[in-house]
Amino acid sequence: MYSAFNFTMKSYGPTRARSGRLVTPHGEISTPAFILCGTKGSVKGVAPIQLREERTQIILANTYHLFSHPGSDYIKERGGLHKFMGWNLPLFTDSGGFQIFSLGHGSVADEIKGRRSGSSTLLSITEEGAIFRSYWDGSRQLLTPEKSIAVQRDLGADLIVSFDECTPFHLDKKHTELSMERSHRWEKRSLEEFRYGNDGTQAIYGIVQGGIYEDLRKRSAEFVSGHQFFATAIGGTLGSTKTQMLEVVEMALNGLDVSRPIHLLGIGGISDIFNGVIRGIDTFDCVHPTRIARHGGALVKATHRDCQNREHINLKRAQYKDDDDPIEMDCRCSTCRSFSRAYLHYLLRANELLAPLAITIHNIHFMNKLMEEIRAAMEIGKLDDVRARWC
Amino acid sequence: MYSAFNFTMKSYGPTRARSGRLVTPHGEISTPAFILCGTKGSVKGVAPIQLREERTQIILANTYHLFSHPGSDYIKERGGLHKFMGWNLPLFTDSGGFQIFSLGHGSVADEIKGRRSGSSTLLSITEEGAIFRSYWDGSRQLLTPEKSIAVQRDLGADLIVSFDECTPFHLDKKHTELSMERSHRWEKRSLEEFRYGNDGTQAIYGIVQGGIYEDLRKRSAEFVSGHQFFATAIGGTLGSTKTQMLEVVEMALNGLDVSRPIHLLGIGGISDIFNGVIRGIDTFDCVHPTRIARHGGALVKATHRDCQNREHINLKRAQYKDDDDPIEMDCRCSTCRSFSRAYLHYLLRANELLAPLAITIHNIHFMNKLMEEIRAAMEIGKLDDVRARWC
Repeated sequence: MYSAFNFTMKSYGPTRARSGRLVTPHGEISTPAFILCGTKGSVKGVAPIQLREERTQIILANTYHLFSHPGSDYIKERGGLHKFMGWNLPLFTDSGGFQIFSLGHGSVADEIKGRRSGSSTLLSITEEGAIFRSYWDGSRQLLTPEKSIAVQRDLGADLIVSFDECTPFHLDKKHTELSMERSHRWEKRSLEEFRYGNDGTQAIYGIVQGGIYEDLRKRSAEFVSGHQFFATAIGGTLGSTKTQMLEVVEMALNGLDVSRPIHLLGIGGISDIFNGVIRGIDTFDCVHPTRIARHGGALVKATHRDCQNREHINLKRAQYKDDDDPIEMDCRCSTCRSFSRAYLHYLLRANELLAPLAITIHNIHFMNKLMEEIRAAMEIGKLDDVRARWC
Repeated sequence: MYSAFNFTMKSYGPTRARSGRLVTPHGEISTPAFILCGTKGSVKGVAPIQLREERTQIILANTYHLFSHPGSDYIKERGGLHKFMGWNLPLFTDSGGFQIFSLGHGSVADEIKGRRSGSSTLLSITEEGAIFRSYWDGSRQLLTPEKSIAVQRDLGADLIVSFDECTPFHLDKKHTELSMERSHRWEKRSLEEFRYGNDGTQAIYGIVQGGIYEDLRKRSAEFVSGHQFFATAIGGTLGSTKTQMLEVVEMALNGLDVSRPIHLLGIGGISDIFNGVIRGIDTFDCVHPTRIARHGGALVKATHRDCQNREHINLKRAQYKDDDDPIEMDCRCSTCRSFSRAYLHYLLRANELLAPLAITIHNIHFMNKLMEEIRAAMEIGKLDDVRARWC
C-alpha cells in the first residue's frame, strides 16, 4: 500500500526521543524534522532554490487555500504542485479541515494559536462534510472527506492528511466526543477514498482527536492505530497553556502505534519542539518562523535573546540601529553571511522588500539547523546540552 | 588623481559603438554595461548574492534617499555603503540633484520619464544650493555641491557624480542657459570639493547639461571635457520623444572628450540602449527593469512579446494563466529555470511575495545578458543581428 514509503527509526533512552528516516518518492527526510509552511504553494518570498540552499527537507502547502484558488484541478493540469511550484523534494498537504473549521467557529485557530479574530465563512457542517464560502471568490463550496482526498491527490503531495473536524477548546466533553466520533467516521471515509485512488505515490496520515480529555485521546489514538494509515498526526486543540499542550500530546501518544511517523500539527516554538521531541514526535509544522520574519522577528538561540519570554529578537527595535553584528554570529545562513542587524533594522524602517525576505531566510536556516543539531545530539546522548544552547 | 581607476576601450566602425573595461577599486566593469538601481541601498527584494548570481557588475544607489535616511554619517560609521549593504563590487551614486529638483518643479522627472505627479518639497534654490524638505522626517535640508560630494564620500561609492541643477524640458533657451551656467559653477565646486578630500578610492563624473539646445549642449560638453573629471554623464532633459532623445544625446557627445567613460542617466529601454550604444554610450541606469517587475512586467526579447509597443509582457494578463513555459525558453536566470508563466501569473493574482521577486530576478538577468550579448556582438561585427533579436 505504501511501497514507495518507508519509515525507520532509532530510539534513545531515557526519553522517548527518536531519530528516523522517512522515505518518500521525492526523497528522504531525516527526523525529527520541521516542515516549513508554503501556504498557497509558495514559502512567502522564498524560491525553492533558496529553500534548498538553507537545507530545507520538506514543505507543507494548505489544501484549503489551493482548493479555493487556483483550484486543484488547475494544479493537476499543470502537472501537480511539485512541478507547479518548482519544488522537487518531499511535500506535505493538510486536509483543509483546520482552516475551514477555524473560519467557522472563529475560535479554533485563535484558541490554538492564542489569537483573536472573527471572520466567519463556514456555512454549515453535516455528516456529509462542511459547506463554506470561498475566501477567494465568495462561491459556496462543499468539502467532504472524499473531496479533500481527491483534492490532495490532484495536488500530488507525498504526504497527505485525513479530513477531520477540528473542535474548539471550549467544547465540553460530550460534544468533543461526538465531534471525535464524526472525525473517526470522516477519517475512515478519507482512508477508503485514498485506497480507491492510491497509485503508490502518496501516503496518508490519520489524525488523533479527542480534545483535552485523556480517555478520548486514548480512544482516538487506538482508532488511528487500528487503521492502515501510514502515519499519525496529533490534531485538534492542545489546550490553553504550554503545560496542557504537553499533557495532551502525552495523552495522544498513549495507545498509539509508535512505529509510524508522528506529526504534531501547528507547533513550531523552539522549546515546544524540544518538548515534543523527547516525547517521540517526529515532525512539526508551523507558520510562526516565516510569519514573524515578515514583521522583523529573527529567531535566535538562548544567549542572543533580548527578552526571556521570546525566542526571537525584533529587529525593528531601536537597540539594533547601531548593531554591526549579524543576527547570530554562529549562523551560516546567507543573511548572516551578508547583513548586519543594523542594515536589517534600516531596511525594516525604510520598508524595503529585502528585509522580510532576508529575515525569512535566516529563520528557515535556523529551524533546519535546530533540527540537525537535535538529530546529531541524540546520537551522542547530548540532547540536554543542545536544548540549553537553543532555549 | 584617479590611480585606482582606469578606462580602456576599443572602437568599432562604422558606428561610434565601443566596448571597454572600467577598472575601479571594487572590480572591473565590462562596458557597455547597465547599472541596476538600488535606490535606498538595496535592489528591492534582491540580496547581493543573487545579484551576483545573475551576473550583475555594478549597482547605483541614490544620494538623495540615503542622505534623508539613514544619513550618510550613519552609513560612514557602518563602514560605508559597500559594507553596510553587503555589496563588494563596483557601486555608483548620483548627486541627489535629480531627485531634489524633480520634487520641486514637480515636472522634471515626470517630463523626462513621461509621468505626471505633483508633490512639492523643494523650498528654494540659490547660488549656494538647494533647500528642501526631507521626505523622511520633514526636516529642512540644504544640499550644496560641497555637501553632495561630502555625502557621496561618506557613502563611499566607487563612482560619484557632480551636483548639478536639473532643468525641466519646458524651460526656454535663456533660462536653460542660465541654469546650465549655474550647473557648471556647481560642477566646478563639486570637483574642488572632490579633489580636497580625494583619497584615490573614488572617481567623479561631470554632467553635460544644456537641455535640447545644440549650442548649449556643445558648450556644456566642452566645459566638462575641459575639467579633470574622470568620466562624463549626460544629464538634464533629453526632450519629449525618443527621436529627440537621440538628437540630444548626439548634441551632448559633440565636443566631448570621448576617451572618458560616458554614462547616460536614467535610460534603460532595450531599443534606447542599442541607440545609445551605437552613439558611443558606455553605461546606462534606470529603475525601469526592476520597477516593472514588481508590477508583473517581465522583459522579453522581440519574438516573445505580446504587443509591439512594449518590451515586456504583463504576467498578470489572463493569457498567461495556462502558459506552462518559462518567461523565456532561452533564459538561464534562476526564475526561468524554476517557474512557469502560469505559476508567476498565479502568484501575482494571489498577491504572493515571491512574484515580484522572481520577476525582478529575471529582469536583472535579462539586462545583464543583453549587455553581454551587445559586447560580444561588437567584437564580431554583429551588433545588428543582436539588435534584431532583442528589439
